[in-house]
Amino acid sequence: MNDAADLVAPVEAWLAAHRTRLLDELFALLAAPSVSTDPAFAAGMANAATGLEQRLRRIGLDEVRRLEAGGHPALFASWLGAPGAPTILVYGHYDVQPPDPLDLWTTPPFEPTIIAVDGEPAVRARGASDDKGPLSVALAAIEGHLAVHGGLPLNVKILLEGEEEIGSRTLPTLMATHRDLLAADVLVSADGGRFRHGLSSINTSSRGIVGLDVTLRTAARDLHSGRFGGPAGNAALELARLLASLHDERHRIVVAGFLDGLRRPGNADLAGMAALDIDETAFLAEIGARPGALEPGVALLEALWFRPTIEINGIVSGYDGPGTKTVIPCEARAKITCRLGPGQDPIRAAEAVAAHLRAAAPAFVDLAIEGGAHGTPAYVAPQDEPFLTATMAVIEAVHGAPPGRVGGGGTLQISAMAREILGLETVMLSYATADERIHAPDEFFRLASWDDGVRAWARLLPALARATSHS
Amino acid sequence: MNDAADLVAPVEAWLAAHRTRLLDELFALLAAPSVSTDPAFAAGMANAATGLEQRLRRIGLDEVRRLEAGGHPALFASWLGAPGAPTILVYGHYDVQPPDPLDLWTTPPFEPTIIAVDGEPAVRARGASDDKGPLSVALAAIEGHLAVHGGLPLNVKILLEGEEEIGSRTLPTLMATHRDLLAADVLVSADGGRFRHGLSSINTSSRGIVGLDVTLRTAARDLHSGRFGGPAGNAALELARLLASLHDERHRIVVAGFLDGLRRPGNADLAGMAALDIDETAFLAEIGARPGALEPGVALLEALWFRPTIEINGIVSGYDGPGTKTVIPCEARAKITCRLGPGQDPIRAAEAVAAHLRAAAPAFVDLAIEGGAHGTPAYVAPQDEPFLTATMAVIEAVHGAPPGRVGGGGTLQISAMAREILGLETVMLSYATADERIHAPDEFFRLASWDDGVRAWARLLPALARATSHS
Repeated sequence: MNDAADLVAPVEAWLAAHRTRLLDELFALLAAPSVSTDPAFAAGMANAATGLEQRLRRIGLDEVRRLEAGGHPALFASWLGAPGAPTILVYGHYDVQPPDPLDLWTTPPFEPTIIAVDGEPAVRARGASDDKGPLSVALAAIEGHLAVHGGLPLNVKILLEGEEEIGSRTLPTLMATHRDLLAADVLVSADGGRFRHGLSSINTSSRGIVGLDVTLRTAARDLHSGRFGGPAGNAALELARLLASLHDERHRIVVAGFLDGLRRPGNADLAGMAALDIDETAFLAEIGARPGALEPGVALLEALWFRPTIEINGIVSGYDGPGTKTVIPCEARAKITCRLGPGQDPIRAAEAVAAHLRAAAPAFVDLAIEGGAHGTPAYVAPQDEPFLTATMAVIEAVHGAPPGRVGGGGTLQISAMAREILGLETVMLSYATADERIHAPDEFFRLASWDDGVRAWARLLPALARATSHS
Repeated sequence: MNDAADLVAPVEAWLAAHRTRLLDELFALLAAPSVSTDPAFAAGMANAATGLEQRLRRIGLDEVRRLEAGGHPALFASWLGAPGAPTILVYGHYDVQPPDPLDLWTTPPFEPTIIAVDGEPAVRARGASDDKGPLSVALAAIEGHLAVHGGLPLNVKILLEGEEEIGSRTLPTLMATHRDLLAADVLVSADGGRFRHGLSSINTSSRGIVGLDVTLRTAARDLHSGRFGGPAGNAALELARLLASLHDERHRIVVAGFLDGLRRPGNADLAGMAALDIDETAFLAEIGARPGALEPGVALLEALWFRPTIEINGIVSGYDGPGTKTVIPCEARAKITCRLGPGQDPIRAAEAVAAHLRAAAPAFVDLAIEGGAHGTPAYVAPQDEPFLTATMAVIEAVHGAPPGRVGGGGTLQISAMAREILGLETVMLSYATADERIHAPDEFFRLASWDDGVRAWARLLPALARATSHS
């Protein structure tokens, strides 16, 4: 095997020479309306899968096949011609969010269009940032290595899911069924995102999640407030009182047992947050909000990335029409989701919330709590994970500065699943950024991110070939 | 003028002799679908008004006319042939609630049907109990006196409203415009209701009401709970916290200034409540509820009739569809109505609630509070009101026991309006009872209540003729 730099320079030259054709292949993928949640888009899903399958075969991967477990198929491919070298499992997804509301799109969502963002070119289309652009970056780099060198510096497996936007419904089954086929030393995700365009950073954590639905009843039917107001309990009021009891007056969660197992961020994560110096007032002003909801003593980024929350996603009870209706509602419902910090067990956290609500409920209400039996734990990449260390060196080479560890407040199911089912840590190397309107109208992907991304992925393969598995 | 007993006995005989015809006139009135809220029932409203107008003329009242102030007309009639005697203003309403849901009626709502209730005959129809049955009772007694004696023992004015079920929208204007025409010594209401069939009682109070709509905002748009959960305020949670702050842990209202002016029940009211001996557990079991919502130290009937409430009539925020949506709602709304006890000023009470919510709201939320500019105060008839005392003697004579004073937890606008605009106290003498499914399918009115009612009203006229105005 040649020296890494010798391996990379000709691949970079090849990528530059084939840039137009590679971007055209991305645009063709973007033109397939692969909306996984809506059966009306079945043809779009099929077109995207078929196109990717053909591409995986064409670029010289050895085994290309579909994996199915009752839902949209995942595409699998592998090149295993580097005996003794590590094996990476590259992850991405080819399904996209629905494009609605269509009338808020400046150009049609499945007609990729070159636009300018802050004076720089970008491609606008549904899925451009999440996740067709980033997964195409990874495929382009792999194709470059295969084209230039006739092989790869390490063993590569690729898993392109078709159900990420619908909760990866069948992925756990599919992973468990194909545990041997998917066996690797690390998962490298082309899904996820960078903190900010132009910043040298690597995403290394995500929060977990678990949800509960609560229904509270006080009587057999809605009651007239004149005839029963006073002696009869009001379901809306009682549910408000229960929900208000989850936090203290300073917005600290006071649910016994909920925080069990929670770990504070590690030193590298603390350093990564400190380096970013985010201004809370400015951060909140962008969403039309003001500071004050944050529990005291917790910095903004730590709250976003490492602290759990108990959020009311919805509440409904009684009358919401025009005018006045003097009703005492007999039923009130709330939907709750908790973002989880590192170390919290989703099931136990949900049980703690349920137990708190049951204990806080007065004897005259009936409480029904559903959900909480499934959840996703938080994920934090180990500080000493060798593949991560190697990836950070790649990012430093491409961006000219050592990357800080940044987190994500959302939940990346793939990291938790890969750890739990396949025993793999995750390295996140997506070139999407958080400002690219994902899940919203006018989603876009910067072409500068494409260029940075293919350079990084071209370096990544030989860099990871020299890394040693953490496990 | 003869002795009262001599006046009443022949009227009772006349009423017994003409019972079938008088009930047929009630049934004809019930057959007119006089739903005031729905323009589709305009013909029913017109039929009811025309039929009543013809009846008022036929029975020998002197002046019969319509009073209008832009809404459904009220019918006015008077007989003023007793100079020197008091003048009473008899009140009732000929409009009814919509019959929906129609499929829950056993027989069609505007086809009056004789049924058995606990083995006793009753008439089933929309409006039977509220208020066509009770107002027909009053008209029958007046007709009996006119037919037997060629006159009445006192001056009588009659006001039959067509908008009671839509909040008596134009009645205040109409009262103010016709203050002289409506001048009297007391208002006698054939609307309202008795506490319980077979019980010797008189309704002497009602609670007031005022309402507020609250909208709370925390951000310019709904937010993703992963990207913003922690630093960003949750409108549903913040509104729940605000609403929970209105009462203490024992359900006592803790809104500063809200209770200002509140008077405890008088001795006669306390005695009336004590005599009823209502069991809280049984009362609540009938509505599928359990004790516990009542503030400590307050008896059930006092809470229902004399204590104020702050009720959440509705709350809505965020997502209420199937499954999970990880949204942080930016807006939450609640509808609040307060039942008011004697002495509370509706506007000041609403202002106290609004001030409490504003003070309790954290600085990072925006609160908009609407309403509260109009309300109805509670009404309590004075203990020494001579017309009330005379009416109680009538009830004792008819029912064989002195009537207890009972209250109503709802709001009778007519009492507050009559006091405020016309300077009149109200004597409630309706023979409707609370169990007659008013505003609900299968509304009915007991024929025993008819018989008791016409006997009471026949005695009432000479009895009030001898009473002296309180003012």
